Amino acid sequence: MPITYLTPEHHKTRIEKLKDTLDKSNLDTFLVFNSKNIFYLTGLSFIPTERPIILIIHEGEVIFFVPNLEIDHVEHQVPFVSQVLSYFEYPDKIHPMHHLKEILLNQLKITPKRVASEYGGAPGYWGYKGPTLEEATGLKFKMLPDVVMDMRVIKEPEEIELMRESSKWADRAHKYLQELTEVGANEIDVTIQASTRGSRDMMTELGEDYRPTGFSMFPAIALYRGQIGPNSYFPHALSKGLVFNKGDTLVTGASSDVYGIHSELERTMFMGEPSNRQKELFAAMLAAQDAVFEVAGPGVLCSVVDKAARQVFKDAGVFDLVRHHTGHGLGMEGHERPFLDIGSEEVLETGMVFSCEPGIYEEGLGGFRHSDTFVVTEDGNDILTKYPREITDLIIE
Amino acid sequence: MPITYLTPEHHKTRIEKLKDTLDKSNLDTFLVFNSKNIFYLTGLSFIPTERPIILIIHEGEVIFFVPNLEIDHVEHQVPFVSQVLSYFEYPDKIHPMHHLKEILLNQLKITPKRVASEYGGAPGYWGYKGPTLEEATGLKFKMLPDVVMDMRVIKEPEEIELMRESSKWADRAHKYLQELTEVGANEIDVTIQASTRGSRDMMTELGEDYRPTGFSMFPAIALYRGQIGPNSYFPHALSKGLVFNKGDTLVTGASSDVYGIHSELERTMFMGEPSNRQKELFAAMLAAQDAVFEVAGPGVLCSVVDKAARQVFKDAGVFDLVRHHTGHGLGMEGHERPFLDIGSEEVLETGMVFSCEPGIYEEGLGGFRHSDTFVVTEDGNDILTKYPREITDLIIE
Repeated sequence: MPITYLTPEHHKTRIEKLKDTLDKSNLDTFLVFNSKNIFYLTGLSFIPTERPIILIIHEGEVIFFVPNLEIDHVEHQVPFVSQVLSYFEYPDKIHPMHHLKEILLNQLKITPKRVASEYGGAPGYWGYKGPTLEEATGLKFKMLPDVVMDMRVIKEPEEIELMRESSKWADRAHKYLQELTEVGANEIDVTIQASTRGSRDMMTELGEDYRPTGFSMFPAIALYRGQIGPNSYFPHALSKGLVFNKGDTLVTGASSDVYGIHSELERTMFMGEPSNRQKELFAAMLAAQDAVFEVAGPGVLCSVVDKAARQVFKDAGVFDLVRHHTGHGLGMEGHERPFLDIGSEEVLETGMVFSCEPGIYEEGLGGFRHSDTFVVTEDGNDILTKYPREITDLIIE
Repeated sequence: MPITYLTPEHHKTRIEKLKDTLDKSNLDTFLVFNSKNIFYLTGLSFIPTERPIILIIHEGEVIFFVPNLEIDHVEHQVPFVSQVLSYFEYPDKIHPMHHLKEILLNQLKITPKRVASEYGGAPGYWGYKGPTLEEATGLKFKMLPDVVMDMRVIKEPEEIELMRESSKWADRAHKYLQELTEVGANEIDVTIQASTRGSRDMMTELGEDYRPTGFSMFPAIALYRGQIGPNSYFPHALSKGLVFNKGDTLVTGASSDVYGIHSELERTMFMGEPSNRQKELFAAMLAAQDAVFEVAGPGVLCSVVDKAARQVFKDAGVFDLVRHHTGHGLGMEGHERPFLDIGSEEVLETGMVFSCEPGIYEEGLGGFRHSDTFVVTEDGNDILTKYPREITDLIIE
């Protein structure tokens, strides 16, 4: 059976690992605000709003500080929670951060010099305002903004399996996208239909093994995002309800949400037989991807991977059409560090997951970019998205 | 014809208004980082990533600082842009914020004491790291975090028309949601189908007048988010792929994206004839909503509106089932200030738009919450979502 979700026991091992890191710095208490980091550590998914939600790791215990409306929701989702402490509402008559002071000092009786936090205060989301942690509590917090993200950079074997599963359903949804694309169709309509079919397959075939996190409306998606015909020239176009025409260059996207892990798949396709120039730019792009897969492996600098793709474009005489670097880390978020970029001195390590998406863009003609998700392995790399990459498979008659 | 989008001229009036505010504080230059605020001022929609994108209002001119991949995209979308300044990529060999220093000091030749900014630096999104504005440029910026949000709190007449149109399509999508809901169906499937049908109606009936912003995958959505049967007890449940059963209490949601403006519509529904307790709690919730519509009008404190709903719940003997305040501002974001909350001393003004959603939650039975979108008018308020509110219309046989 494929791995399609993680167990509470798995989350507990992450908490243990975090506790070990804190212990080494003589820290007893750590406050986590980032909603993805909270999910990573505990399996709690929630809707981030203006109401602060804080995970407090205190002497290895898992404690939450939440608004009234989330109390039972936390107890329902996190079987190993020790305490759920709460405030009624934001803004309310007493600010949540003043409740927090009382909780830290009087209820948890924390040791002032042994407290750390991910952020300086609750994020200013959806109209939230409030004092910083220091202003609210009078305590000095050691700032550890990266400690959880550092854990997330190297994917665990189970996470790589989730990513493999996510890639499978991205491939499936993309198959429907390609089948549904035809002259005169609207990109929004094709996006919705392909995502619907891909999601149904995923839900039906996984059955009880599919455990939605609630983060995504579609379990699997395949989409157009405005990169159609001349508009595909814009690397980050947005969906405008465009219609497909003969001769168009298309750039697609697909993913699926497997327990919060998202793969990335993109393909360059053509409406009818491509012109010589379309073939030429497609070939350069494909060769740049190949160069990346050739070089990417443990111990290699991120900058070296980017340079490999850039060299292909230089050799093909199309370097002036490059608009961005070669790829980015990914996992629970669409982009994560490290970046496959000439300026990055980070090193690829076994278990890191990246997109490989060197792209070139010619005004009037369009964009040429595939994106595939790969994991760094001991031997080099393993491409998780399996959708056909060759031009002959990507022409829509 | 309904208003379904705003023109570049309309955006220019907002820039003018902002410039007037800056002039009054002797400020020449203002940096905007928030992507919704940038859209509000200029009509530019883009995908926020780790790459900083900054709108610079400089002596009334509209200038952008963007990564290479967005240069042409900005020129394409903002006809009144004066200059598009750029850096190649993030992280790159030179950090974007160091390019910014050069641009502000040497290209724009800004006057140091007359610069302001919305944020202290680029937001730490998707792996971004960088110096603060002050660290990068050596300049002291006057911080104006709220100046654009203050403009957004009072909706312009055209925005209220967008909200009215958004409410119309939320209503339509919700009609499909109700029609598709049946014993044994899966919430994810019903959500996707209802949103597909609502979106098709919207695209077909508006035709050329529908101008997608690209912010939303579905033009119109109607959804379940896990509030089904006993799980509807969790006010902020998330979709878990639940199946409808006879006797379930349901809480729904619906909206649509009309040029970035989103209405909010929620309904409590029942799978079959409700029990006496279901009827009783539904009636209390409906009476609380009525009390809000009775009291809400210009000059009234937000706290007074919340108290009106709370009083109804107290009188009905169900105050212990309350889990949150009565509502929140909304517009381009799901929640915006002000909040209809006992702790808020803000005052309702003509042109403000709020959700009205007093809710009660009984463990084991479920949640009872409608949400309607209303605008504060000179005479009181106008409810924009028109979906039937009475229990007889909300029973699924």
